[in-house]
Amino acid sequence: MMVSRVGSPWSRALVECVPNFSEGRRPDVMDAIQTAAAGVDGARVLDRHADATHNRMVLTIAGAPGPVAESAFRATARASELIDMRQHDGVHPRIGATDVVPFVPLGATDMQVCVELAVRVGRRIAAELDVPVFLYGEAARTSRRRRLPDLRRGEYERLASEIGSDAQLTPDFGPLRIGPAGATAVGARRPLIAYNVTLATGDIEVARAIARSIRESSGGLPAVQARGFLTADRNVVQVSMNLLDTRRTPMSTVFERIAREAASRGVSVVASELVGLAPAEAVVDIAREALRFGQLDAEAILETRLLEQALGG
Amino acid sequence: MMVSRVGSPWSRALVECVPNFSEGRRPDVMDAIQTAAAGVDGARVLDRHADATHNRMVLTIAGAPGPVAESAFRATARASELIDMRQHDGVHPRIGATDVVPFVPLGATDMQVCVELAVRVGRRIAAELDVPVFLYGEAARTSRRRRLPDLRRGEYERLASEIGSDAQLTPDFGPLRIGPAGATAVGARRPLIAYNVTLATGDIEVARAIARSIRESSGGLPAVQARGFLTADRNVVQVSMNLLDTRRTPMSTVFERIAREAASRGVSVVASELVGLAPAEAVVDIAREALRFGQLDAEAILETRLLEQALGG
Repeated sequence: MMVSRVGSPWSRALVECVPNFSEGRRPDVMDAIQTAAAGVDGARVLDRHADATHNRMVLTIAGAPGPVAESAFRATARASELIDMRQHDGVHPRIGATDVVPFVPLGATDMQVCVELAVRVGRRIAAELDVPVFLYGEAARTSRRRRLPDLRRGEYERLASEIGSDAQLTPDFGPLRIGPAGATAVGARRPLIAYNVTLATGDIEVARAIARSIRESSGGLPAVQARGFLTADRNVVQVSMNLLDTRRTPMSTVFERIAREAASRGVSVVASELVGLAPAEAVVDIAREALRFGQLDAEAILETRLLEQALGG
Repeated sequence: MMVSRVGSPWSRALVECVPNFSEGRRPDVMDAIQTAAAGVDGARVLDRHADATHNRMVLTIAGAPGPVAESAFRATARASELIDMRQHDGVHPRIGATDVVPFVPLGATDMQVCVELAVRVGRRIAAELDVPVFLYGEAARTSRRRRLPDLRRGEYERLASEIGSDAQLTPDFGPLRIGPAGATAVGARRPLIAYNVTLATGDIEVARAIARSIRESSGGLPAVQARGFLTADRNVVQVSMNLLDTRRTPMSTVFERIAREAASRGVSVVASELVGLAPAEAVVDIAREALRFGQLDAEAILETRLLEQALGG
């Protein structure tokens, strides 16, 4: 039997980049940044989300690692020309014209690919744009810089006044001074999943108690944020979650834990709900658990393989 | 909040086409057919699989419906010029130079899109290439033409001698005569899934009995083909299956039924195994069942949405 396959394994890595820019009001500036991002073969700008109150724009770029890195850099460069942080206000915390550049692995791509991209793009932003860069998330070099809220404390204004004097504020790359473009956090992270579980009770205290018992900040499950919510239907309440890393805590584990906690209070689970999208990997994890697949990852999904070939090929 | 999305719903349909050609030995002929298929913007030739014993080549093409239809037609046209069925031999049953052209929905694309494509491409093959076309699968216009083996009975040779005299052989489109390119079956179907379940016993009779009880042909589950197999490990046996339509019988249903049948014989299930790829839809179905998602389809998968935009945008 003679078999030939179009494409090869090394061309398979796929990443997403979701850079956040401190401009959500001026359409011409947002268009210019998006246009800069869109000009790279092999990287696609799949989504643009802007918010005037936050005064912030988020682009979603996907493709092979090299082109996505180039696209993210070009958008960052354009933002540094067009946005002056001294004029910026908005309710969302921020440190720079390009506030944060997260790289996210898609399909079965290894996190290490995204960590390396973050380092490469971070170094280039510092060198070519003269902007201080902080590595965060999986790319962080100290545990104090893993979480964005820690990095953003005091925001642009604090950095502008203290970057030269406070050793904690020394960037991973770039100058010890802040210009109009501010600073940029560049990092790597897993895709976020917004996941809700609906409970067959109108008692909000049940949802709150379960949320408390499962969220990481109260000593619950790793990489899980949770709150209890009322819904439009008075007969049910929801545990509303952000799953920050389903490698550490899979959705099945979250669901089973909630079902057990609810059962211990005499309450049953009505349904699960996904808000927005989930990566193939997280859904495959559920299937692997449910049907006891020995091995099963996102590479087993037809659409993931097609995507790798369509974007990476 | 201002939100703009790149791309729009009508551009979302995604299909795969897996045409089979009666040439698996001459590389120049195979290359010419593949090259014809590859010349259409918006359609990608993702895989080529050839077998000299079968004397047969299979291409996998994916993309937006229009470009995939064009690509499939061009490959069919090239095959009709280069393959003479009077010279063809091989162990696989076949009726023409382009033997079969199946369209398969990807992502959350509706089957109706593929049925319409099959009719359109079938009509065009008949009109422009003067080749008799039989619609099969979901595109079949009579139940006798749903299954390919029924259509292929007697193969090219029977068609060549009887097409004008046997009313059962009247094509859906095209002439009542057969030239060197033979005839072509054009249709629509769900993706096939090759799925095995391993049982904790060395007794092949257990696997065979369970296979008999679940396969459609013995009155079991719809759209399930199943056989019992020994494995390299003498402590376990496998129920080996083709799932022809997981909309009709989801993988979870198959797994639970096998687990129950095995338990009734005092045998436990070791693991599930996927041979090759599964469509996102089938895996999402498992997750929906396991975690009680109220609604969840392939559109909820990040990679599926990216694929739609990458190929359809």
